[in-house]
Amino acid sequence: MLDLLANKWSALAIGALEAGPHRFGALQRRLQGVSPKVLTRTLRRLEATGLVARTVYPEVPLHVEYELTELGRGAAVPLNALRAWVEDHIDQLPR
Amino acid sequence: MLDLLANKWSALAIGALEAGPHRFGALQRRLQGVSPKVLTRTLRRLEATGLVARTVYPEVPLHVEYELTELGRGAAVPLNALRAWVEDHIDQLPR
Repeated sequence: MLDLLANKWSALAIGALEAGPHRFGALQRRLQGVSPKVLTRTLRRLEATGLVARTVYPEVPLHVEYELTELGRGAAVPLNALRAWVEDHIDQLPR
Repeated sequence: MLDLLANKWSALAIGALEAGPHRFGALQRRLQGVSPKVLTRTLRRLEATGLVARTVYPEVPLHVEYELTELGRGAAVPLNALRAWVEDHIDQLPR
């Protein structure tokens, strides 16, 4: 489980989804540099562990949204602390 | 930087080193399942980013110890929170 959360794209996806449900494309834009393949795999793993819920809207065109579950919102707390620590110390870290 | 910290073996290595300096073999035993190659790479990355210091003791036989720097001890705080969250919710997560 730690390897799922202690993973850059999982951490960033959970962080982005804190702002609310996102479609795949919107998430991909927010997570600069993530490939569709990696984002798909990340979202599937987050879904499989119950941190993210996936809703399919049967409209035309059909669309899918991803959002944090309650468990996911819980995981966001320590992940935010980790991201904040990195941002606070970025100048002490070599490029 | 997040990808270094948001990494299972980095998180576990930093956690283990909180107990004090360790030799390579001791770290490898504590991080069950880590291969020497992965542990070497993880320690090199932690050293390169200033989170871990490596001291060579020129005795016979020569030995090397790894310990957290001050920056490393700082990173341990949010990493511990992440690990604690995982441990607290492990029963809600599928195996």
